Amino acid sequence: MTESMALDDLRNEALTRQLQHTLDHKTKPLGALGVLEGLALKLGQILGSTAPRLQQPQMVVFAADHGLAARGVSAYPGDVTWQMVHNFLSGGAAVGVLARQHGLSLTVVDAGVRHDFEPQAGLQIRKIGLGTADSLDGPAMSDQDCERAIQQGREVVRSLPGNAILFGEMGIGNTSAASMLLSRLTGLPIESVTGRGTGLDDEGLQRKQGILQQVLTRHADARTPLAALAALGGFEIAMMVGAMLQAAQERRVIVVDGFIVGSALLVAHALQPHVLQRCVFAHQSGEPGHEKLLRHLQAQPLLTWQMRLGEGSGAALAWPLIESACRILCEMASFESAGVSQQVS
Amino acid sequence: MTESMALDDLRNEALTRQLQHTLDHKTKPLGALGVLEGLALKLGQILGSTAPRLQQPQMVVFAADHGLAARGVSAYPGDVTWQMVHNFLSGGAAVGVLARQHGLSLTVVDAGVRHDFEPQAGLQIRKIGLGTADSLDGPAMSDQDCERAIQQGREVVRSLPGNAILFGEMGIGNTSAASMLLSRLTGLPIESVTGRGTGLDDEGLQRKQGILQQVLTRHADARTPLAALAALGGFEIAMMVGAMLQAAQERRVIVVDGFIVGSALLVAHALQPHVLQRCVFAHQSGEPGHEKLLRHLQAQPLLTWQMRLGEGSGAALAWPLIESACRILCEMASFESAGVSQQVS
Repeated sequence: MTESMALDDLRNEALTRQLQHTLDHKTKPLGALGVLEGLALKLGQILGSTAPRLQQPQMVVFAADHGLAARGVSAYPGDVTWQMVHNFLSGGAAVGVLARQHGLSLTVVDAGVRHDFEPQAGLQIRKIGLGTADSLDGPAMSDQDCERAIQQGREVVRSLPGNAILFGEMGIGNTSAASMLLSRLTGLPIESVTGRGTGLDDEGLQRKQGILQQVLTRHADARTPLAALAALGGFEIAMMVGAMLQAAQERRVIVVDGFIVGSALLVAHALQPHVLQRCVFAHQSGEPGHEKLLRHLQAQPLLTWQMRLGEGSGAALAWPLIESACRILCEMASFESAGVSQQVS
Repeated sequence: MTESMALDDLRNEALTRQLQHTLDHKTKPLGALGVLEGLALKLGQILGSTAPRLQQPQMVVFAADHGLAARGVSAYPGDVTWQMVHNFLSGGAAVGVLARQHGLSLTVVDAGVRHDFEPQAGLQIRKIGLGTADSLDGPAMSDQDCERAIQQGREVVRSLPGNAILFGEMGIGNTSAASMLLSRLTGLPIESVTGRGTGLDDEGLQRKQGILQQVLTRHADARTPLAALAALGGFEIAMMVGAMLQAAQERRVIVVDGFIVGSALLVAHALQPHVLQRCVFAHQSGEPGHEKLLRHLQAQPLLTWQMRLGEGSGAALAWPLIESACRILCEMASFESAGVSQQVS
């Protein structure tokens, strides 16, 4: 352990004690706000303050296409990726509605959509390619493109203000990439972590499982986090990995949406375990692999609402709960300041 | 069944079909927003619209003291009730912080606090008495006072604008009243529905259970909803019963907070079963009786966060989720309007 790390740990311990003390003296019985208190503690730790204030929160949706989608692993045609990017930008998608409700800035990042977009407000064009290659034929992307995507993800975060990033994604076929990454990085069997995505029927699910097993067998040697990411991942997933590494380094709050964002975190965590300290988990989705992913990371989701839309919709939905946790720390009176009698001991 | 009720049912069926159709054509896979979609359907049904808009939501905290508190059934001294009323009015309590965050009007109703308050903005003084009587000695309140409290509760709702009421409460000792009402109205054994309230230790919990059993035995003949409410309840609980009946009649959204608000709903529901159709359940608290109460009403709480503060803190915390459900219906694009391809069938 280096000296500066030891110092960091000491600071964190002192801060955690101060945060707990602050919470325990608010006008409420000890622990009576339940999960909200744990969340407040976490946000205080991330932002390094007993009175943490969330500033200019950024909802970022990373979008890209997947070569494997042509194999029929999704219930929707690939064109939906670019069509939904337009829907995000015009404010009609779920994530746009929720971002507007909560005053979140919404940025869409074209990480590799198979479509040429006109430059416009709210869109960052950082295309690595026109969708990944079909991972049943070869790696989804080259090692160089994977590295470029990670660097571009870091740039996305550097380009945005504020101290919190809410992660979302769009990419027809990307639950397949997420399932394969989860299976490869944790050793869980692919059947146990493959779901219906946005709505496959029984036959479609079986076909999807068969294809993913073939892809994993083809890339049996891609075992390091970066090799697995290049062989099995997607441009939006790789870009989120970079964005998470950068956000963690800058001590921003990382709001993790659902299964696909979770798969990016799995890779980022394998590269830099401390990334996890910066994360708040918005929800546990209906996709069966997500519960296993959260358990692997020992993460507690705020909502269990059987959502399976992606886009960052779960992160945006949960945002006011995160804001509430900070406000409890900053704005609630203490027993002393309010002149309220304490518990009879 | 009367003719007008049959007509109501028909209208509701048609509305429900329209709401489901609207949700199913939004730009998302069928059902992909999970619990949020069920919530949107419910709010549309309550407000009678496929584009429901929440207007001037009112957070109302009903406060009163309990004679039984002198028996040591709470971890806090009785003075905390009036001290917390001041804390609500000055904005330092959890419910005040959360109401401010969400732009909720906050009204405190003195239903029977053992303290004389100066008239002030945000406070409605509708005192039925200076706290209830000790229910181990006799009924907590007379039948006449119970009826007056219910009428005053109706008046509270009539005095407030908007189409949604968030219910909260304050009253040292009121988990005892809630546990006894739950036991009496459902037949569940008192030990199984009695908890630590705001923080009793093991010995305190055992003492509380013993006292509540004695009170129930003393009032073995108080078996109708109103007789049970008068014998075992509290002024704030009785006033909430009236407020819920009035809100349901006016077709307002009733946001149910935790265990004590739930016990008022139990009584209101026993008097008028249709009240339940107007309710959204904010959370399931850490108080053991609450899960049983929700199961009895077949209610699905939005959050399970182990909160046990009362005040309406859970209702206020969950408010933006309720708002999100309405916005999804009102603001999300349809596949057609957004030019997005539908599922491959």
